[in-house]
Amino acid sequence: MKKYTTLILVGFIIVLAAGLAGTLLYLKNQPPQERGFEPIIEIAPMEPDSSKWGINFPNEYATLLKTGNNNTPTTYGGSEKFSHLIEDPRQVILFAGYSFSKEYNEDRGHQNSLTDVRAIKRVDEKTHATCYSCKSSDNPRLWSEMGMEAYDAKMFSEMTPEIQNPIGCANCHEAGTMRLIVTNPALEAALQAQGKDWQTFTRQEMRSVVCANCHVEYYFVGDKKVLTLPWMNGTRVEEIIAYYDSIGFSDWMYPGAETPMLKAQHPDFEMFTANSTHYQAGVACADCHMPYLRDGAAKYSSHDVHSPLLNPEQACGQCHTDVDYVVERVKTIQDEVYKAKLAAEDAIVDAITAIQAAAKVSDVDPILLDEARTLHRHAQFRWDFVSAENSMGFHNPEEVLCILGDATNLARQAQMKAAQAAHAPSILETGSYYTLPSVPTPVP
Amino acid sequence: MKKYTTLILVGFIIVLAAGLAGTLLYLKNQPPQERGFEPIIEIAPMEPDSSKWGINFPNEYATLLKTGNNNTPTTYGGSEKFSHLIEDPRQVILFAGYSFSKEYNEDRGHQNSLTDVRAIKRVDEKTHATCYSCKSSDNPRLWSEMGMEAYDAKMFSEMTPEIQNPIGCANCHEAGTMRLIVTNPALEAALQAQGKDWQTFTRQEMRSVVCANCHVEYYFVGDKKVLTLPWMNGTRVEEIIAYYDSIGFSDWMYPGAETPMLKAQHPDFEMFTANSTHYQAGVACADCHMPYLRDGAAKYSSHDVHSPLLNPEQACGQCHTDVDYVVERVKTIQDEVYKAKLAAEDAIVDAITAIQAAAKVSDVDPILLDEARTLHRHAQFRWDFVSAENSMGFHNPEEVLCILGDATNLARQAQMKAAQAAHAPSILETGSYYTLPSVPTPVP
Repeated sequence: MKKYTTLILVGFIIVLAAGLAGTLLYLKNQPPQERGFEPIIEIAPMEPDSSKWGINFPNEYATLLKTGNNNTPTTYGGSEKFSHLIEDPRQVILFAGYSFSKEYNEDRGHQNSLTDVRAIKRVDEKTHATCYSCKSSDNPRLWSEMGMEAYDAKMFSEMTPEIQNPIGCANCHEAGTMRLIVTNPALEAALQAQGKDWQTFTRQEMRSVVCANCHVEYYFVGDKKVLTLPWMNGTRVEEIIAYYDSIGFSDWMYPGAETPMLKAQHPDFEMFTANSTHYQAGVACADCHMPYLRDGAAKYSSHDVHSPLLNPEQACGQCHTDVDYVVERVKTIQDEVYKAKLAAEDAIVDAITAIQAAAKVSDVDPILLDEARTLHRHAQFRWDFVSAENSMGFHNPEEVLCILGDATNLARQAQMKAAQAAHAPSILETGSYYTLPSVPTPVP
Repeated sequence: MKKYTTLILVGFIIVLAAGLAGTLLYLKNQPPQERGFEPIIEIAPMEPDSSKWGINFPNEYATLLKTGNNNTPTTYGGSEKFSHLIEDPRQVILFAGYSFSKEYNEDRGHQNSLTDVRAIKRVDEKTHATCYSCKSSDNPRLWSEMGMEAYDAKMFSEMTPEIQNPIGCANCHEAGTMRLIVTNPALEAALQAQGKDWQTFTRQEMRSVVCANCHVEYYFVGDKKVLTLPWMNGTRVEEIIAYYDSIGFSDWMYPGAETPMLKAQHPDFEMFTANSTHYQAGVACADCHMPYLRDGAAKYSSHDVHSPLLNPEQACGQCHTDVDYVVERVKTIQDEVYKAKLAAEDAIVDAITAIQAAAKVSDVDPILLDEARTLHRHAQFRWDFVSAENSMGFHNPEEVLCILGDATNLARQAQMKAAQAAHAPSILETGSYYTLPSVPTPVP
């Protein structure tokens, strides 16, 4: 009898130990607010000063501060402020006549948002206050206190005294509950227009949607420059172009070509959610850009947001077992996308040259020339939708390569339309064309 | 003391049981030849009759036979013999002047290889015996007995009596050892030219390389039509084109355009191994197309080779836990590739139209016209390298989309060169161009 008792007792011990270990592991894996977190200080609603939130959340705050100094570059991006115009002089041509041809740098981390927006040559006395919309944790408070109208009436420099804090806690979190929230009224309106209420979203959905508070394509409506997302037809690039066409919007007129141009901002959210591999797999932006870290027994999400290529063990290793393989894949894909991006740029530069030449011809066909301009407009926005996006294609490789293929195709068609408009094939003589082989064409 | 004895005994039992289970599981997971398999009958070297091999390997043989009847289509492929020319009439234009414009069907399974090659309208009295090279398990025996010369001297119909068996065991296995082997002398030579000896390859490498016995780009050298793989510069599409250019090879002359054309065969191996996701992850062709199945305690590799979309639970489920997600990804990617493929076809058809028109112009510039032809040749081979490949891009989505983007870009350049050659932009008037929006071009 005694040996059975022993066995039963040992069995009990094993079951209890396993249960305890499991429960501890479960608790350890819960985000802070679900652990019954007790705050040290109370945070006022929309508190813009992140250091106050940092008293309750020292790990999150310490990692947020790192975005101020983590300026490490990657092959194609990272957080170093290099000049896109120097790295790729085609972009000086592509943005001619627009402020992006003056200065266009790779973004640095969130803590540098105010320093960098105030230093950039694109901002001058004609810059509107709306340009602060994505740069500061003061925005949610200002929007709440004064409405979007606070910006509508002011210039950039007039708003400066109100804007004290770089991007921080209040841009994505609700004080007290700490839940993730949409703070940008333009995003809320764009979602509503699609029949979506973010309040019904899951936490995993919100771990991407809060990034869309800023990382989206947007434009300014009317003289008051009201921040608006062009999502009325949908969030795919062709749907956004169709929307801009339907309202007759353009950002600037291309000099000499007289093409009404569109400038893409940073449509990271739209690109990622356009059926990308990771999005279809249920992955959120934060899974890769804000991986969970440990501080002793505490588990927290890193707020040192940057390229996952700078910490692939944490960023990719949460799901992928072979991190070296994954990093190699990213490299392969980004190299391919970069090549396709340059091919599109060459084609668009050629289209610009052709349209400019055609516009000078006295008996040019105005309808064909306008068609060439529309092709230029659509081609360049497609390219820019990829180029302005922060992943050199990795957020959605197949979608990006399709968009770039279309951009090149349209740019070449713009060239042809320009030649037709000018009745002059000589317009096609100069261009960045495919290098033909030196061997003679074989005869079978 | 007694309770310790009980514990020790129980411990022993657990350890032994776990050891036994582990060993059995290990043995169960070994491929047949490593299990110390004892054959029922002895198989002669290069035995062409697969039914004999089937006595020793009834499961493998039973699944091989299924390739004769498994004619299920997938969205873009599968094993149903539908006509590519009917499904996509652009291909009638693209292959004008060549036998592929007569009849071009989707491939059926391995067991149909002889039936289908003998029935196709492409084969006529001028067809050479080399066309049997990839269609029969008699080939290894014939190559061994008579050398490649056996084919070099004969026409297709003359060889027919020697060719009795469809693709089978002898195409990939060594009788006796059952190891995977390169049987096609052209593949062996192509690997040797790259300094590679397949005898040193791992078993996992061979589980892809044996597919390259047939699923590769090839051409016939000289009057004797010696089967040759054009891999001397490498296996990427641009390296293959450069090789064909360097030796002045072409498959046919495009009527009216007089472009010396290249026809791609089925470069599945080249496409898959060009840094695809799965190849970089160490996956072999057989992992997806010949997944392991069970017959009671026996584990065997399915020889019912077909699209993994017809059995994703087995094919993808060996590595991927969420098969629904994976199938959805394949659909997304193939839809994107199909769209990009049609865009390339439209551009190439436009290039052909333009070159044909230019060739009729009396004072055409012959140098520019030849450049247009070379662009047509290079564009169409790129497109065909994707189109003739059996995966609608899934073997390597990023590579495929880059190749298609290049094909479209080159075809548009061919159009422009033709217009320049003819001094006539009117040549560009007809074409499958981007549909311009009906709204007027906005003015900022």
